[in-house]
Amino acid sequence: MVVMSEPTRNPARSTDVTVLGLGAMGSALATALLDAGRSVTVWNRTPGRAAQSVARGARAAGSVREAVTASPVVVTCLLRYPSIQETLAPVAGELRGRTLVNLTTTTPNESRDLAVWAAGHGADHLDGAIMAVPDMIRSREGQIFYSGSRAAYDILLPTLEIWATSEFHGEDAGRAALLDLAMLSGMYQMFTGFFHGAAMVATMGMSASEFAARQAPFLSAMTHGLAGYAKVVDGGDHTGPGLQSLDFSDLSHLVRASEEQGVDPAPIAAVQALISRQIAAGHGAEGFTRIYESLRLVGSAAGSGEGDAA
Amino acid sequence: MVVMSEPTRNPARSTDVTVLGLGAMGSALATALLDAGRSVTVWNRTPGRAAQSVARGARAAGSVREAVTASPVVVTCLLRYPSIQETLAPVAGELRGRTLVNLTTTTPNESRDLAVWAAGHGADHLDGAIMAVPDMIRSREGQIFYSGSRAAYDILLPTLEIWATSEFHGEDAGRAALLDLAMLSGMYQMFTGFFHGAAMVATMGMSASEFAARQAPFLSAMTHGLAGYAKVVDGGDHTGPGLQSLDFSDLSHLVRASEEQGVDPAPIAAVQALISRQIAAGHGAEGFTRIYESLRLVGSAAGSGEGDAA
Repeated sequence: MVVMSEPTRNPARSTDVTVLGLGAMGSALATALLDAGRSVTVWNRTPGRAAQSVARGARAAGSVREAVTASPVVVTCLLRYPSIQETLAPVAGELRGRTLVNLTTTTPNESRDLAVWAAGHGADHLDGAIMAVPDMIRSREGQIFYSGSRAAYDILLPTLEIWATSEFHGEDAGRAALLDLAMLSGMYQMFTGFFHGAAMVATMGMSASEFAARQAPFLSAMTHGLAGYAKVVDGGDHTGPGLQSLDFSDLSHLVRASEEQGVDPAPIAAVQALISRQIAAGHGAEGFTRIYESLRLVGSAAGSGEGDAA
Repeated sequence: MVVMSEPTRNPARSTDVTVLGLGAMGSALATALLDAGRSVTVWNRTPGRAAQSVARGARAAGSVREAVTASPVVVTCLLRYPSIQETLAPVAGELRGRTLVNLTTTTPNESRDLAVWAAGHGADHLDGAIMAVPDMIRSREGQIFYSGSRAAYDILLPTLEIWATSEFHGEDAGRAALLDLAMLSGMYQMFTGFFHGAAMVATMGMSASEFAARQAPFLSAMTHGLAGYAKVVDGGDHTGPGLQSLDFSDLSHLVRASEEQGVDPAPIAAVQALISRQIAAGHGAEGFTRIYESLRLVGSAAGSGEGDAA
């Protein structure tokens, strides 16, 4: 069943949308549009995945070509960058005059490549990075960062806001992906740190749940320190008072304890390597925020010559 | 000036305490005791550090021997484990009948060694791990985990509670240190993840402060997921629905993007190595909580044969 746009509606508020890719996230995006009364065409490489969206009123296209030509806005929510190319390349000629909204996870350079490719086929391109799990789509908790065509963003905002809070980060199409990956880096490292700690205390018979009950509020409290560390990083002076020194932050004992407990020390050894590099460069008495300087292999404003990481 | 205990007081509430080591934390511990009306003797290798405590009423001992013999309870808050041995070994004969409360950061095995050493000299031993910065001493936010002598813990609790909320974790002296290090592992990995993300977005001109404003609430929200992941780890079944799969969690694109931005990918590459090991072992369709199984090099209940980490 196709829900037709009423001609009296504001065009921006009634744009027909095609969604390519019906994994958990693609399905959530399509459902949100359907629930908002939009006309939605869906396509998935494996046909069975369309049933849920069709039951909510979507039209299942029989081919990518049929899907792309059904709407002025084509959303890709596929597994990885190569899937976008595989899916769209055969129908590239149909993209002219349409807007491609890519919500597939990509690297910044892949997003930039896609922008160039889309422009070459006469399509406007907006790249989005979803900071949410599928369940959070349509809640106000979720956020989507966008970059690429500012014109497309402005026109499509009423559609984009159906999904999540939207933030536009500039016309360089790679910026949304970069910010997304930066956010996820912190998340995955935090999760890994939790698993690492849980594996350590498992050797003393503490369950992961008991550990989580202590670790979660502790980590949450520690996030309050990030704004202060950021200020030090932005100022570039790691010698200020009140900062724990790198010497004091040396984690050799934590690496050693991890080994002693039969727990792979690799993730915490990676942190220690960053600390060691700064201490070796003579910065041991400075704040542990200098870890940041260890990470910048090129273009380091500090120019401390530590850019020789493996 | 020595504040003498009044003979009518409950002995447990008026125990004299010696504090060896007057760094920021040792000074905070001594000051807290003085503010609570206790008689405190202090000693520091570098004499100048005692001035602050003395001004608040502490007695500065002229030697370690004088300090140790001044009180039934001797607190060590030194830089590392070797400092404890260097400081106490020459006066080991004076420890008989006293209680040694070690608050120096140690590995679990170092704490166990200290317990054996103290017992060999007729001293009771309690090992504490401080989950607080010096400013948090005497606030209710701080926590100190203890392990070792249960009798010493019970007798000293009125003293210990002056500093922070106390938790006793068993008679194996290494347990407090182990839990402490496990908690800090999560914290340092989270901080490193934040610095890594900040370095990535710096290349698009976003300040660390702008990034922290997004990252801190995001990470704080993500800590709410830890209890659920812990339940999966405790149950040992990573195949349940609702978990993001390892295949989907593959971070190769994040490692690649970090390299492309000139940011050292080592900390996130360490996470990816744990993911890759599980995928290579055929668990790609299972939940990303299997990272935990990658970390357990020995005694893995899952016995998946992935214990060959470098």
